[in-house]
Amino acid sequence: MTALDLLNRKRQGAAHTREEIDFLVRGVTDGSIPDYQISAWLMAVCLRGMTPDETLWLTQAMAASGEMLGLQTRWPDVVDKHSTGGVGDKTSLVLLPVLAAAGCRVAKMSGRGLGFSGGTIDKLEALPGLRTDLSRAEFEAQVHRLGLAIAAQSAELAPADGKLYALRDVTATVDSLPLIASSIMSKKLACRPGQLVLDVKVGAGAFMKTLPDARALADAMLAIGQAAGIRTSAVISDMSQPEGFAIGNALEVREAVEILQARGSADVLDLCRALACALGVDDIDRTIASGAAFEKLRAMVAAQGGDPRSLDDPSLLPAARLRAPLPAPYAGCIAAIDAELLGRAALALGAGRAHKGSAIDHAVGLVLKAKVSDYVDADQPLLEVHANDETRLRQVLETLPAAYTFADGPVEPPTLIHAVLPAG
Amino acid sequence: MTALDLLNRKRQGAAHTREEIDFLVRGVTDGSIPDYQISAWLMAVCLRGMTPDETLWLTQAMAASGEMLGLQTRWPDVVDKHSTGGVGDKTSLVLLPVLAAAGCRVAKMSGRGLGFSGGTIDKLEALPGLRTDLSRAEFEAQVHRLGLAIAAQSAELAPADGKLYALRDVTATVDSLPLIASSIMSKKLACRPGQLVLDVKVGAGAFMKTLPDARALADAMLAIGQAAGIRTSAVISDMSQPEGFAIGNALEVREAVEILQARGSADVLDLCRALACALGVDDIDRTIASGAAFEKLRAMVAAQGGDPRSLDDPSLLPAARLRAPLPAPYAGCIAAIDAELLGRAALALGAGRAHKGSAIDHAVGLVLKAKVSDYVDADQPLLEVHANDETRLRQVLETLPAAYTFADGPVEPPTLIHAVLPAG
Repeated sequence: MTALDLLNRKRQGAAHTREEIDFLVRGVTDGSIPDYQISAWLMAVCLRGMTPDETLWLTQAMAASGEMLGLQTRWPDVVDKHSTGGVGDKTSLVLLPVLAAAGCRVAKMSGRGLGFSGGTIDKLEALPGLRTDLSRAEFEAQVHRLGLAIAAQSAELAPADGKLYALRDVTATVDSLPLIASSIMSKKLACRPGQLVLDVKVGAGAFMKTLPDARALADAMLAIGQAAGIRTSAVISDMSQPEGFAIGNALEVREAVEILQARGSADVLDLCRALACALGVDDIDRTIASGAAFEKLRAMVAAQGGDPRSLDDPSLLPAARLRAPLPAPYAGCIAAIDAELLGRAALALGAGRAHKGSAIDHAVGLVLKAKVSDYVDADQPLLEVHANDETRLRQVLETLPAAYTFADGPVEPPTLIHAVLPAG
Repeated sequence: MTALDLLNRKRQGAAHTREEIDFLVRGVTDGSIPDYQISAWLMAVCLRGMTPDETLWLTQAMAASGEMLGLQTRWPDVVDKHSTGGVGDKTSLVLLPVLAAAGCRVAKMSGRGLGFSGGTIDKLEALPGLRTDLSRAEFEAQVHRLGLAIAAQSAELAPADGKLYALRDVTATVDSLPLIASSIMSKKLACRPGQLVLDVKVGAGAFMKTLPDARALADAMLAIGQAAGIRTSAVISDMSQPEGFAIGNALEVREAVEILQARGSADVLDLCRALACALGVDDIDRTIASGAAFEKLRAMVAAQGGDPRSLDDPSLLPAARLRAPLPAPYAGCIAAIDAELLGRAALALGAGRAHKGSAIDHAVGLVLKAKVSDYVDADQPLLEVHANDETRLRQVLETLPAAYTFADGPVEPPTLIHAVLPAG
């Protein structure tokens, strides 16, 4: 078996055997297959596809290419949650403390954000002093003691996926359903929780722009999870407009805290309710109202070296130097808010990374003052820009109006939950 | 414009602009586009195709990536011939001296053989002392003085094609019509003869296995040649069985000499007649019968440092130590001879290169004693193996019988010339 054989077979549209996939992933991991062969294979996969079996084998081989945590062996009930990413997505910051407070054991390894959608790790790191680079021992000890840990995934977790992703990023082969599904799930299989809920976002601010694409991705990931012995469910949720009101790391932490203090945005809470329900956890409102969920977040922040007082007093969080409103151009109902455009504006302000490894400004971002279906008067602020640089602020204020569409008559709010795909 | 943009566009099946193709070829030539991006692009081209315009632009850009000889500016009548390659293909060794003797000015730059089909340069180098690494000045001086030169193409000729070919070879992207056509024609455009005839082989022993594929390749190359201002014609010729009787470098030189001495195989001569006719040269039999063509070959060999006596006395050519016949298993008419299998046998004996840069044994090969439609008695020799290694000889004698199919009744010889596509 040679890499050239595999390339020939995939080019012709054949399905690989498990042995072929294992050979390929071994070659990716140990560097014995050169990048130019891997990238040609990736392009062939994009154009020829992979069967569910091939996708599963690829996922399993990538998971096995590094450290395997096998959390469910130690805690059969351990829970994980994954979002395919979106603009203003702070669901994990709310949901995971709620689940832990409700008695679940929550262990989440998370990646950093890239492009216009942020990452949970970046948001947590807006909290002064908080560490996300937990060792495996620290991570497991915290899951054991506190029932809640969120850590940055190390390079030891599914390293073959890391290498493949880096090549996909520079060869126009990111956007392939089996490659996306296997990339996400390889890290889940390496951790192996007992239960996993997937938040599959759909719309302008998400990776999947249409419902059929989102559904297909959800189905592919569910199939992998189930086949690998993880009780997996999925919620397909709207990302046509940003999630909640805040976009930007510290701003999103602040919004998450408000929700955990029972005074936050209803749509984030609705989504958390659906995700919790998929994991068999009901009545999260009570868990929030009791203060138990907020206390769990405080405990986690403290355990990871952060200052829990920054949760009680948001003025201790990083704050931007400049603030400016974006006024509504005229009166009317907001018919649409382009989430991707807002995500790109936040990125331009410094809230995200245009390139892997770039620095992030945790303070900057956008805070929406109205959402789709809301009526605004002329000059009423649509959102507030938080910036640390005059030029960027001015540029962003110029591009933002294009994100808004108005209607003369009333507008229905978009459907938030498109589908719930329960664990089989 | 970035390589990633181009990859995205080709992945989606879009046609590149001329500027995009130029950008890509520049990046290939100066190394600014990394191999992993080029190989992903090559795979996308294999699966998405290229338009005739894209193929022409790619050819022109690759031709312009190195030295441009522009032969037709100096000699409007200068002639070149190219074969897509086959087993036992010694047509150039016969045709080019004939054309020169008939008054054409012949300037051929040629590549080395790879895989089961040989190369004209390797065959010429079977002649003791003969040099093919002519400088550009030597090459042009010989074309001027003698009207005939055959030289190995230097790395300065269409270097972008050389780089792309090397990547194609290791990424399962060799077999793509626009890439094959542009690769061949880039070197022709860099030389730019006034007239060009293409010998497009079809059948088991050729790159193109079916007539529609061969026709499509011929059409693509004709379109490029015409668009680039070269009067181009094509002959589609049979390669289901080997060409002539000899396979192997010195053995083929010997057969070519016999043909030029008017005592050689009829099918090679028939093919030469068709190719000459496509270039407007009639009555090559007279040129051969007069001895003028053989004298032209002698003069060329002498001019390039070879010993012309080795043409007069074949015992001066490299000869193999071992000879063994392959006996017919039973009496009957030969219905088919698998040219590829015979080509691979010659390769196994050392007559060709399994890998670029491997050494060649000029002496070894096969000499057919009968061809398709010939009747043979049981045990009558089908061919003679010329080898320098007992083990290889034995192995080859074991695999060769599978190349032959016999019929009880009479068999028609295969059609030699499938089509002639005259210059437009």
